[in-house]
Amino acid sequence: MLLLTLSLILCLMASVGVEINPRLIDAKYAVRGPILDIANDIKAKLNDPASNLPFDELIYCNIGNPQSLGQPPITFYRQVLAGVLYPDIFSHLPLNSDVKERVASILKEAGGQSIGAYTHSQGLKVIRKHIAEFIEERDGFPSNPDRIFLTNGASQGVANLMQTFIFKENHGVLIPIPQYPLYTATLALVGGKAVPYELIEKESWKLSVENIEEAIKKAKEEGIEVKAMVVINPGNPTGNCASEEELTAIVKLCEKYNIMLLADEVYQINIYKPDMKFTSINKIVKTLGAKLPLVNFHSTSKGLIGECGLRGGYFELVNFSDEVYQQLYKLASISLCPNTVGQVAADLMVKGPKKGDPSYPLFKKEREIIFRNLREKSVMVSEGLNKIDGIDCQNVDGALYAFPTIKLPKRVVDAAEKEGLKADAFYCMELLKNTGIVTVPGSGFRQVAGTYHFRMTILPPKDKIPSMLQRMGNFHRQFTQELEKTEL
Amino acid sequence: MLLLTLSLILCLMASVGVEINPRLIDAKYAVRGPILDIANDIKAKLNDPASNLPFDELIYCNIGNPQSLGQPPITFYRQVLAGVLYPDIFSHLPLNSDVKERVASILKEAGGQSIGAYTHSQGLKVIRKHIAEFIEERDGFPSNPDRIFLTNGASQGVANLMQTFIFKENHGVLIPIPQYPLYTATLALVGGKAVPYELIEKESWKLSVENIEEAIKKAKEEGIEVKAMVVINPGNPTGNCASEEELTAIVKLCEKYNIMLLADEVYQINIYKPDMKFTSINKIVKTLGAKLPLVNFHSTSKGLIGECGLRGGYFELVNFSDEVYQQLYKLASISLCPNTVGQVAADLMVKGPKKGDPSYPLFKKEREIIFRNLREKSVMVSEGLNKIDGIDCQNVDGALYAFPTIKLPKRVVDAAEKEGLKADAFYCMELLKNTGIVTVPGSGFRQVAGTYHFRMTILPPKDKIPSMLQRMGNFHRQFTQELEKTEL
Repeated sequence: MLLLTLSLILCLMASVGVEINPRLIDAKYAVRGPILDIANDIKAKLNDPASNLPFDELIYCNIGNPQSLGQPPITFYRQVLAGVLYPDIFSHLPLNSDVKERVASILKEAGGQSIGAYTHSQGLKVIRKHIAEFIEERDGFPSNPDRIFLTNGASQGVANLMQTFIFKENHGVLIPIPQYPLYTATLALVGGKAVPYELIEKESWKLSVENIEEAIKKAKEEGIEVKAMVVINPGNPTGNCASEEELTAIVKLCEKYNIMLLADEVYQINIYKPDMKFTSINKIVKTLGAKLPLVNFHSTSKGLIGECGLRGGYFELVNFSDEVYQQLYKLASISLCPNTVGQVAADLMVKGPKKGDPSYPLFKKEREIIFRNLREKSVMVSEGLNKIDGIDCQNVDGALYAFPTIKLPKRVVDAAEKEGLKADAFYCMELLKNTGIVTVPGSGFRQVAGTYHFRMTILPPKDKIPSMLQRMGNFHRQFTQELEKTEL
Repeated sequence: MLLLTLSLILCLMASVGVEINPRLIDAKYAVRGPILDIANDIKAKLNDPASNLPFDELIYCNIGNPQSLGQPPITFYRQVLAGVLYPDIFSHLPLNSDVKERVASILKEAGGQSIGAYTHSQGLKVIRKHIAEFIEERDGFPSNPDRIFLTNGASQGVANLMQTFIFKENHGVLIPIPQYPLYTATLALVGGKAVPYELIEKESWKLSVENIEEAIKKAKEEGIEVKAMVVINPGNPTGNCASEEELTAIVKLCEKYNIMLLADEVYQINIYKPDMKFTSINKIVKTLGAKLPLVNFHSTSKGLIGECGLRGGYFELVNFSDEVYQQLYKLASISLCPNTVGQVAADLMVKGPKKGDPSYPLFKKEREIIFRNLREKSVMVSEGLNKIDGIDCQNVDGALYAFPTIKLPKRVVDAAEKEGLKADAFYCMELLKNTGIVTVPGSGFRQVAGTYHFRMTILPPKDKIPSMLQRMGNFHRQFTQELEKTEL
């Protein structure tokens, strides 16, 4: 009700004659929210010697943007990307034959043999074939390139599917708590309902079939038709890795309730714990012979490729009718085609140089360095956070984030409320103002009522992490114990 | 009513348990519609010697996709694009200093100095500054980089604005007849109403203020709230170039009725008639000191750059409140950022090498060749079509298309109806099957009732155009005069 009133007020505040869609006003996307505006203000002040800030630089832990924090792009990938844009480089540069061959294999299928032509609205067929081969090799079941859609990042795919299947106010989608805010944001835009299911924090953010079934039942009682379920595995913001058993139980549950599965598996390579491995929901569905509709999402932004800016990604339709396919194809065609450089990035992600190829040794080495770094940092961050009294962090088994619980005294919660803020939002703002560390309040991801968290990435350079954690510890102590002295 | 029934049936046909948004089912996008499916089938047959087709190749005139038909990319553009992806090329390749400088100026502002990082959700500031300078130089009025949004092609921008402002079933948008089907498709998706206004074909597809005002009044009588007006200048599919007088009258009309203007100006450089020049609506609005909200769209897909696949584009907000800006910024942030290579393409489009720069001579020469070719082909196509008895084509003053009227005898219309087709769709399918030429039926763009058209691009290679037109003439004669002999 409060939200509705707020929406109305904001609507009226808009320029004369220009009304804004209230669904857009309701949508929230914390990862780039007010915290980033404050960070930008601070960034400007950093250059001013008079500003007298207690830190020298901002550390952006708000978003999984690896290359912005120094993760280098992989050489083979960039050589192919440069090659498709400017094939003349091969007459000048001493590039490996596998780079040249990959460029040729892609351009051969591009209109006019140019990457500047629109492609098929699902993306170049040769790339979709490589993706299908990748899925097949990973899961052991055939994949159909004609049911794969390349997209501008995974986000566009999620938006397209929400738009296709969620179109009534009582259409609901099961969303993990905590979730990546893309889901609640796109749901708000299409006017559907988030049906929250809680992950079990104390058990490494485990998926709980009981919680999910309870959420389905509660939703039904409220008149909500649960159409789909989002599973983020490995988890964002939680870093959990679901076991085969957990996923099997979920597939069976969704079949029982006739619920479509949306599998956000963009962190499938980012698993750091040696005894854990990624299992795709696709593999479970195919192994069980389940008939429920499933969409798998992948992205070039994460993994070890980390090419966020190129906006590459794909989704695969499994167990959908031709009619659904045709409508999704039409939707894709309205925006003509996904960007071709992102398409090539997706090709590279699923098909690197193989052992024996000339680019393989460097490729292997670069990936190993990136992976080792991420693994080490995942431990440094969670262990470092746990050393802070009043912060409690699950292991970061996968993905790129820590999502620790913060214990906040009641007077902090009250002080925040006086400022019109949620306590964790207040905390993250003060953390930023006092340390230069940019995080995102847990409320932006939703969290169990009465708990407070923040999300931070494990991406800062290794040599900066210890001092960063120390500053966080100092801040936390000061903030929770000496609030009265902190300038609000 | 028929449409509604059809939607319902299609909905029920979908796979068990999966309902499709009826708005998506209603949306139409003819440019990549059924005609392309038939073309793909034929393409497969072309390789089969037994298929015995009366032609050797398909000529794709259905879509403005210049590089797929042999238009070469511009060297400076591609060198910079390859350079931002793989800056190492500068240590090997003898590239001009201005290429290197441009790459450096962009990467300096990218996160981690890498094009693989997410940028600001509106796009890199340095690129938005260049766009603002371009607009300022073109129109003589200041432009604000903070109100420019880079996008994945112009299409994404149009979709975002429709989503923001059109959110009730009685929200209407003025759309030219004929129009580019992106507009009716995005309107269908958001559930708004197209309010059609007819261009005057006989006067080179002139914009008629009378027709527009009539359309507004008629819409109001039907309870439609006219929120916005789309102007496509130069016109797609019509090729018309609006005069300052026409545009001034339209701006005043929109001010009178409190209607937002959406200016699709992606063909602003594609004007072939020597005595015509492009005037932006922005210039008119600023000259008049008008206060109506205006959005300008531009794209890297057309012009002389023709980089469709890279999905670059931008829109500029003029006369909007901060609140509208904030909401559009949030919407952009949900999909994180426009693809960075497309952003760089937009930078290049608005800022080429200048006289005196080392890359300028080749740049100038390449652009001149592309422009001369397009101009010559615009004349070849319209003149050639007019030589066919029963086809009547306006001059192609601008853009990349001809949209001729075809005179079809009543028995053709009847025969088409018997096949459940619109007469022009039937015509285009038969044209394709008999000649290999891919066009789009006029009904996909909407047309004045009782008239029939098709859209074809002027993009095929010059040496193929005469024989192509001859085949079209032969087909037209045969089709209209000897329908009974044509295999249906």
